[in-house]
Amino acid sequence: MSEIVAEGIIEAGRFEDFLNVYHSKPTGVDSPFVSECKMHFDDDGIHVAVGDAANVAMINPSKLDVRAFESYEAAGRVTVGMNLTRILDFLKPAGGGELVHLSVDMETRRLRFEYGAANLSLGLIDPESIRKEPDVPDIELPNWFIITGEQLADALEIADLVSDHVRISVDADAEEITFGAKGDIDDGSVVYGKTDCIDSQLAETSESLFSLDYLRMLAKPIPSDAEVTVDVGQEYPMMLSWEGADGHHDVTQLVAPRIQSD
Amino acid sequence: MSEIVAEGIIEAGRFEDFLNVYHSKPTGVDSPFVSECKMHFDDDGIHVAVGDAANVAMINPSKLDVRAFESYEAAGRVTVGMNLTRILDFLKPAGGGELVHLSVDMETRRLRFEYGAANLSLGLIDPESIRKEPDVPDIELPNWFIITGEQLADALEIADLVSDHVRISVDADAEEITFGAKGDIDDGSVVYGKTDCIDSQLAETSESLFSLDYLRMLAKPIPSDAEVTVDVGQEYPMMLSWEGADGHHDVTQLVAPRIQSD
Amino acid sequence: MSEIVAEGIIEAGRFEDFLNVYHSKPTGVDSPFVSECKMHFDDDGIHVAVGDAANVAMINPSKLDVRAFESYEAAGRVTVGMNLTRILDFLKPAGGGELVHLSVDMETRRLRFEYGAANLSLGLIDPESIRKEPDVPDIELPNWFIITGEQLADALEIADLVSDHVRISVDADAEEITFGAKGDIDDGSVVYGKTDCIDSQLAETSESLFSLDYLRMLAKPIPSDAEVTVDVGQEYPMMLSWEGADGHHDVTQLVAPRIQSD
Repeated sequence: MSEIVAEGIIEAGRFEDFLNVYHSKPTGVDSPFVSECKMHFDDDGIHVAVGDAANVAMINPSKLDVRAFESYEAAGRVTVGMNLTRILDFLKPAGGGELVHLSVDMETRRLRFEYGAANLSLGLIDPESIRKEPDVPDIELPNWFIITGEQLADALEIADLVSDHVRISVDADAEEITFGAKGDIDDGSVVYGKTDCIDSQLAETSESLFSLDYLRMLAKPIPSDAEVTVDVGQEYPMMLSWEGADGHHDVTQLVAPRIQSD
Repeated sequence: MSEIVAEGIIEAGRFEDFLNVYHSKPTGVDSPFVSECKMHFDDDGIHVAVGDAANVAMINPSKLDVRAFESYEAAGRVTVGMNLTRILDFLKPAGGGELVHLSVDMETRRLRFEYGAANLSLGLIDPESIRKEPDVPDIELPNWFIITGEQLADALEIADLVSDHVRISVDADAEEITFGAKGDIDDGSVVYGKTDCIDSQLAETSESLFSLDYLRMLAKPIPSDAEVTVDVGQEYPMMLSWEGADGHHDVTQLVAPRIQSD
Repeated sequence: MSEIVAEGIIEAGRFEDFLNVYHSKPTGVDSPFVSECKMHFDDDGIHVAVGDAANVAMINPSKLDVRAFESYEAAGRVTVGMNLTRILDFLKPAGGGELVHLSVDMETRRLRFEYGAANLSLGLIDPESIRKEPDVPDIELPNWFIITGEQLADALEIADLVSDHVRISVDADAEEITFGAKGDIDDGSVVYGKTDCIDSQLAETSESLFSLDYLRMLAKPIPSDAEVTVDVGQEYPMMLSWEGADGHHDVTQLVAPRIQSD
């Protein structure tokens, strides 16, 4: 017996891109951002929101839009718990462009996968056992700039050579953004001027310090050619906004600043 | 002084393919199927037969045919013991298509390799010290089907996601073969219908359970595009037959079933 | 404040090639040949000379020629200590063909890197704390031959299969060079005749035994298509001479023989 409450057909690679936003694990980081999450299925798509255990970073509520699927159907709103590590394992044998039929069976409490000649079913997790979804703070940031995923990754790579933290500073007069890192004796920085950005509003001189491990976990899934809007302020959280899953997943990520000590 | 009792010239890659049938070591398996074996050289080629220490699986007597060689000569029938790991190491510096001159010297008890500017000689092993070749059981199996190496690998990969064992079932009425695996809460299966097979005879409904580690060791060396004949029955050994070494090595492998407990 | 005493613009990949001559670390060797060295900057380029801690091998004084740079300037002769491992890390984010602006600032005691949007500065090391540069022995060797980097690498790879040492023998009558290695029961050798060499002078029959780890550290950075002049004699050091950094770095390496025991 089965009771399919939601089902859809989607390219394996696109669904992996969606999951990797939450399951991000850059080189040198021991565990993924989250390994389990709640998924809410409704008419609009699949909704997810997660934060880390230490409340340093979060990925705001967003959905994998129904248009990401070849076909999709949900019977009202259903919430299930998912083991992201296992879903990614189960998708690995499928090629990136191969279509996967996913269905949520509440009778057997399984997520079913069908692709090629394969049938797989994965036990769901009790959503009550999963960490509470984060409260999204209402923040307004004075500065924003739009750069590519590659420009963001380059800046974090340079900072990572010398420190565990990066300071993101805006010089409103010089119209410059600096990603700066200081080691005990070594320094590194990347400076983007207004013309290096796709667009920007640099209204106030400001700076905030962030953990590189957290920032790298948020930035890892961003495609090189994605346009990333970065919002920053004075000792204030930073916000990253970009589109994943071939334009069908509007991601907004927040990371809290570190208290600056120097 | 030397006493060459057998010698041949063969492409390095083709000889490696032959050896890897016996020295197979899939990802996650700690040691190769066998690391040493007896080789019998005679006019027809090189004959090998091996079984594992626990008598779960065997590779039936077969030969690397004389036609696999550019040139080949043996002085009667000679039996030597070989360290397969070392032979594979000694072939690695040669390119896949490079011709290697191999010779068995009974005076020095060495296997000699000549390729490019390189001369190598490898100590032979006393064949008496190597595990006895297996007795080949006389079995007749009611069902057989022919699939590609890739189809077999895909089915084992899916089963490996959820269990250490795979159940191979034949439904004679539905004319279907199922590779099924059950984990504690997860399931996986691959179903091939008659039309998915290159050919088949599905005479009796049957099922047998096999260790995935052993099956993966047997299947690893099978080329993706090889045609593999799979013979199965009711709680009975399984037999895999295929051609390796560019058609010059007729391989038949047997694996014993596990006692089914559910 | 800054006091730039030397600066230059060079392709990242070319500078990495130069550094890797000293920081060579072949597979299976635990640490690089040297991880720190003194660099002397003057009008001619950057001069380096290093030996290993056990005095077995050395890289003679040589310079990365001023012509290796797009532009280069030094204020007299300046000596600084450098951490090669860190410089190589700092160059990694740059693409091989990307231009890097390097400058030595004696005010802040930093090596500065500028490429793309990145600015990095690396603390210099007190040159007094770095191992003394080796005295170059005055040696004359009776035999020399010129082979490619690939031929040298091939010969060392074969020897490495069976031993930790390689014997390099010259047969002046047969006009042959043999790289020979003996294991407990296995042997390997590569023989190059006069016609296999680009050029040669094989004046005296000789042989010397060398540590493979040291030889592999010296040979690792040699490009496959480089012409390597190898000078050898009877139980005497061996000398390798070749051009690196696209022809802008004349390298001469020496390795002492092992006492022969057989």
